[in-house]
Amino acid sequence: MQAPRMRIAVFGFSELSERLREAGHEVFQASEPREIESAQLVVLGVSPEQMEFFVEKLAVFAKRGQLFLHSCPRYTLEVFRPLVELGALCFVSIETTHEAWSVTASDEVTATVGELLLAECQLRSISVPESKLQEFVAGVAFASFRNQVEIIAYQLLDQAVTDTETQVEIVDNAAGSRALMDVGTLERCVEVIPEPADRETFRHLAKRMAQAYRAHDVEWWAMNEGMDKE
Amino acid sequence: MQAPRMRIAVFGFSELSERLREAGHEVFQASEPREIESAQLVVLGVSPEQMEFFVEKLAVFAKRGQLFLHSCPRYTLEVFRPLVELGALCFVSIETTHEAWSVTASDEVTATVGELLLAECQLRSISVPESKLQEFVAGVAFASFRNQVEIIAYQLLDQAVTDTETQVEIVDNAAGSRALMDVGTLERCVEVIPEPADRETFRHLAKRMAQAYRAHDVEWWAMNEGMDKE
Repeated sequence: MQAPRMRIAVFGFSELSERLREAGHEVFQASEPREIESAQLVVLGVSPEQMEFFVEKLAVFAKRGQLFLHSCPRYTLEVFRPLVELGALCFVSIETTHEAWSVTASDEVTATVGELLLAECQLRSISVPESKLQEFVAGVAFASFRNQVEIIAYQLLDQAVTDTETQVEIVDNAAGSRALMDVGTLERCVEVIPEPADRETFRHLAKRMAQAYRAHDVEWWAMNEGMDKE
Repeated sequence: MQAPRMRIAVFGFSELSERLREAGHEVFQASEPREIESAQLVVLGVSPEQMEFFVEKLAVFAKRGQLFLHSCPRYTLEVFRPLVELGALCFVSIETTHEAWSVTASDEVTATVGELLLAECQLRSISVPESKLQEFVAGVAFASFRNQVEIIAYQLLDQAVTDTETQVEIVDNAAGSRALMDVGTLERCVEVIPEPADRETFRHLAKRMAQAYRAHDVEWWAMNEGMDKE
């Protein structure tokens, strides 16, 4: 038995609607609010600046039981409130990794529909409560920062250690130590970092670690170096 | 057959010499340079500021074939040059993870001795060439920064996602996206980060990511927010 195919209206660009099209749904690019009348699911892929404006315009034509989705990490479900009040079924799905997207929905049935649609897109869903969606997005942002810092760590270690497994072991397990978090040591480290942006990040994070280790001299150095040289 | 036990002189504090004592070596705390005459291995656990002074003083009593070790990430083998010139066998071993320390030696035989001694301390050794020891230390520092950033990511995700496996998957795979690296989104993220130091780190790293994504508006925001509010 084939799963039911939906008629899906998209405003702007949405990766999910592209994937839903590939999964066999009837996806059409909408430009007028009135066009949503024929759609079971409406995807808002507009810019963050336009989101509230579009919700307001679409509310005029929205129907009870109609599905609405956005994937904009700036907004929670709150932006959909005018639609929810009309009885529309709203959910937010944020790209989290290449294989998993979050699902935050106005009710349990909508959450299940969201999960089923993600599964059709070959994506796993991560259920996130509405009250914690902002924390979730901040956590994902910090995780992507962590992965940027990791890239720099690998670039440096790759010059000193040829074995990839050892590099991974070091990156996964390196713990700051008092010996490392020392002004003179960190000054010498900065010398060998080729990229100015990486040097600045190094100084910022050295300061941050110094706070954790309460090594006030490192903190002082990172602040001064940052001001004098950059 | 029991491995040969060495007489080891320690100046200052050294974790390795503590472990070598546990492994059965005869370790004694030295205070006078002359005391090294009876030692096969001399460990310099003094502060970074004292290192060069001690090397100079010990060079008076050092003998050809005598082993010298320091674990100070501020210095490479270069600090041991006066001892190497006398024919002493010198090596540097830096704490890298809880299970592995680096080895950088003046020659191959000394490198092997260093690796054997680490093995006696239940530590694996990571061979690092002298010319890349500074890059190695900088890489280890970045790795420990990465692990600090990771802790903050987990603290935030833990509020939104209860399943630990999912948290790990997110932290390991979160990739920055243009949607995430957006001024309005990042401003909202900062609101939910409780620690001021974490907020500052968030702003710095957001700026860094914006540079990578060439999103100049984010860069501008991170700089302004940093100045106005902190």
